[in-house]
Amino acid sequence: MKEELHLFKIGGAILEDAAELENTLAFFSNLPGRKLLVHGGGRRASRLSKTLGIETRMAEGRRITDAATLEVVTMVYAGLENKKVVSLLQAGGCNALGLSGADGNVILAEKRQPGKIDYGFAGDIRKVGAKSLSSLLESGFTPILCAITHDGQGQLLNTNADTIAAELAIALAPFYQVHLYYCFEMPGVMARIDNPDSLIAFLDPESYSIHKELGNISEGMIPKLDNAFRALEAGAATVQVGSRKSIANGTATQLLLTSDFPKK
Amino acid sequence: MKEELHLFKIGGAILEDAAELENTLAFFSNLPGRKLLVHGGGRRASRLSKTLGIETRMAEGRRITDAATLEVVTMVYAGLENKKVVSLLQAGGCNALGLSGADGNVILAEKRQPGKIDYGFAGDIRKVGAKSLSSLLESGFTPILCAITHDGQGQLLNTNADTIAAELAIALAPFYQVHLYYCFEMPGVMARIDNPDSLIAFLDPESYSIHKELGNISEGMIPKLDNAFRALEAGAATVQVGSRKSIANGTATQLLLTSDFPKK
Repeated sequence: MKEELHLFKIGGAILEDAAELENTLAFFSNLPGRKLLVHGGGRRASRLSKTLGIETRMAEGRRITDAATLEVVTMVYAGLENKKVVSLLQAGGCNALGLSGADGNVILAEKRQPGKIDYGFAGDIRKVGAKSLSSLLESGFTPILCAITHDGQGQLLNTNADTIAAELAIALAPFYQVHLYYCFEMPGVMARIDNPDSLIAFLDPESYSIHKELGNISEGMIPKLDNAFRALEAGAATVQVGSRKSIANGTATQLLLTSDFPKK
Repeated sequence: MKEELHLFKIGGAILEDAAELENTLAFFSNLPGRKLLVHGGGRRASRLSKTLGIETRMAEGRRITDAATLEVVTMVYAGLENKKVVSLLQAGGCNALGLSGADGNVILAEKRQPGKIDYGFAGDIRKVGAKSLSSLLESGFTPILCAITHDGQGQLLNTNADTIAAELAIALAPFYQVHLYYCFEMPGVMARIDNPDSLIAFLDPESYSIHKELGNISEGMIPKLDNAFRALEAGAATVQVGSRKSIANGTATQLLLTSDFPKK
């Protein structure tokens, strides 16, 4: 029987809300067994860019990362946000250890080739260093991954945190029973974005398709859910999407591979 | 017989010079056995502070760290400079893993109590997590420490990199034969600061005292040398102060506990 690994992606709104961050990290700390956390920090990066007079440009929800923006995201993700999360977890007794993808070569990426859009120093993941990560996990550390990767040639790259979480889940699934959580400010996936009673309990690829066709699922959720389904198909044991509270009380949206829905 | 550990502190001028940094990291990578690197990043932090309109205040060569300055040094040391060094080392085949003192609780500090000067969020080291560090070293990682520590209660702190290097050497000396190097832009300690021919080959506490009394040693060097002698007295096998070149060719200043100088 493989050991369980709880893999949490926390969203940007949580990082911005001191009380919610503390509660989320306390919940995460108390999960049993091996744990790993992934975070971004886009809102703070955009604010720092503004202060520094660097224009924030986005395309299809992703940041266009020129050289100056790469410095900003490296400072904010790997510096400010990563060390904030690590120090708070350490204060709660969790032996957190912050990483970018360059550290221990845990995420090797390649610079995205310019297509219709030139994303600049954006990294597409080539290889996850599962051996390095499991060595850290088995030594008792809880890796805290920020959304910075590298190309193995000395170039840092900016990689979407949702994608990192999915790729880590996939790479670690052969060694652990991976439970992947996309934890953000919403209680889960909504069938109607403005109606909290429309929370979807279970989502399988077929119902996901239908919801997308009907325009029920917000555009921002689609890449997240695509990543989440990819991880489930590639071996994650469970995938949940929701808030800290909905994850804690078992009402977060659970992704399934078939429409054989269990009873909640 | 204890394994050898090469512990390098690299100075700020090296971080600012791309070619010298690359050469220094290549030299470091090629050292045999276990390795650990400590760096600061003060010059870059001062520039970022200026751009952000935050005043840089120093007292006795140390940065006064208010809340805004702590964010700046966390971004620059733990983010920008640490990940630059890690990605360059990884490109050279060295399995570098960047850390602040909060990561894995490797350096626990306490906020310095305000005395004549209030240094703000400055951290005095209380405990080095030698077990965490040796676990990383024995797993094949090369730890890259930046000059950020924490108090174990969720507060990050700013700690002098020279002091960190000395404290790490002292804490790791029971487990390794520690070779400590203070690598900076000068070939070593000079008897007359403006005369490169006045390089001191060996320095013991007695001759150090005399040089200090005579005013031969520059003020900036004194805290560095105090740290270096402290590490030597507390168990470091060797301590050298010099540039990459002088360390490589064996002409850096070597610290000794007695005046029984060996022949170079």
